[in-house]
Amino acid sequence: MARFFLTIEYNGADYVGWQRQNSGLSVQQLIEEAVKSFSGLEIPIFGAGRTDSGVHAIGQVAHLDLPDKFESYKVMLAINAYLRKTKIKVICATKVIPEAHARFSAIWREYKYTILNRISPPALNEGIVYHQKNKLNIKLMSKASQVLIGTHDFTSFRSTNCQSQSPIKTIDNISIEKNDNEIVFTIRAKSFLHHQVRNIVGSLQLVGLNKWNEENLLDVLNKKDRKTAGPTAPACGLVFNYVKYPDEIFLEENYKNF
Amino acid sequence: MARFFLTIEYNGADYVGWQRQNSGLSVQQLIEEAVKSFSGLEIPIFGAGRTDSGVHAIGQVAHLDLPDKFESYKVMLAINAYLRKTKIKVICATKVIPEAHARFSAIWREYKYTILNRISPPALNEGIVYHQKNKLNIKLMSKASQVLIGTHDFTSFRSTNCQSQSPIKTIDNISIEKNDNEIVFTIRAKSFLHHQVRNIVGSLQLVGLNKWNEENLLDVLNKKDRKTAGPTAPACGLVFNYVKYPDEIFLEENYKNF
Repeated sequence: MARFFLTIEYNGADYVGWQRQNSGLSVQQLIEEAVKSFSGLEIPIFGAGRTDSGVHAIGQVAHLDLPDKFESYKVMLAINAYLRKTKIKVICATKVIPEAHARFSAIWREYKYTILNRISPPALNEGIVYHQKNKLNIKLMSKASQVLIGTHDFTSFRSTNCQSQSPIKTIDNISIEKNDNEIVFTIRAKSFLHHQVRNIVGSLQLVGLNKWNEENLLDVLNKKDRKTAGPTAPACGLVFNYVKYPDEIFLEENYKNF
Repeated sequence: MARFFLTIEYNGADYVGWQRQNSGLSVQQLIEEAVKSFSGLEIPIFGAGRTDSGVHAIGQVAHLDLPDKFESYKVMLAINAYLRKTKIKVICATKVIPEAHARFSAIWREYKYTILNRISPPALNEGIVYHQKNKLNIKLMSKASQVLIGTHDFTSFRSTNCQSQSPIKTIDNISIEKNDNEIVFTIRAKSFLHHQVRNIVGSLQLVGLNKWNEENLLDVLNKKDRKTAGPTAPACGLVFNYVKYPDEIFLEENYKNF
């Protein structure tokens, strides 16, 4: 058997999220069904992160084991052939060492959250941005976001349904950039708690709206109580952007199509 | 009466194009109906450019005349209220001098054409990019594109249905940039012939695929025969990006929401 990493792009609007669920179609289920269709084998796939319903990805990674005879390039084409009618595409498939694990081998993960910050709703990017019609102050959000960098107890920013054993996580970086009317938050960490990115963005928005200042945010972090923090920002603005792995795990060039 | 400029964003996939037609819903018709709904008046609107069916816009401009009592900000909100179920949004409304004309006052227009250049089809940007799975050489396209800059007879790059009196146009600039797997062509001119941008991109693609070289492109330009040029690139990749007007025509700050 050979282990493959798949890099996967999807529009999360049509699915219940990454993880298989009884409540509807998940990205995981559709890819597993596509694998079965071309290989005849029932093979489980393991994702780097469990995105929620409505959350998008351009760099989700999943691993699976297939008989040695399969070539990675053809695995990508074969899966995509069966995903033709979906908003899910494999954009890269690469052979990795048998010990490589999409979830546990990750060095860091990066999410992007995009807010369309203007009075009028989106026409062209509808469904892949979150619309905030009140003006956000980027400088205030950028400055305040720095109190979240580093290792902290993020209880105030985790979902009450979060299954992680510890609320302690380390955020490596938060950057906030503006491109015309779009504000893009980029957040990087080894791993995240459930809803952590959306809860952070929801609270930073309160800073951007001048309802909170930096001290309020620090106070919320220290209180370790989800009820003290801001609302969870909507799923549609969130994209699972990238997962970094050690170079040594890749047995082929980690190409991204070209 | 007062004259207003509207800046309009739309996803062209659902419409027959900018211009009113019997064959289906146009952007112009839907905005005129929205204006009638809030003002009770049948007022024609005039666009800066007639985009084809499937072509998008983030900076289409149109003018209309309304009684003096209307405030530009409220005009924008009122039109959008009636466009709620459409993929058309007014993103700016501004009072201009009565002589200002969306089409004839334009100094230059800018279009962007986006090609997703990778093996896998788009998942997240489906419908707003054109997918080309064969690798395009950007350097060759950039170099060749320069032969089109300046004033030329663009007969080879105009639709046979083009209604323009003269095939002579002046292209100010063509730039080609790559962002991850997306190649974005930005083309600026005072005005364009019908299908000119899509026909130029279609021919530059042949250069990028190494089927044509710079001399072939120059040869096609000189032949002044549409049949000699490349295919028309699909509508979905094209966005009407911006129209530049003289500063003097604006009676209010030309705000773009914020």
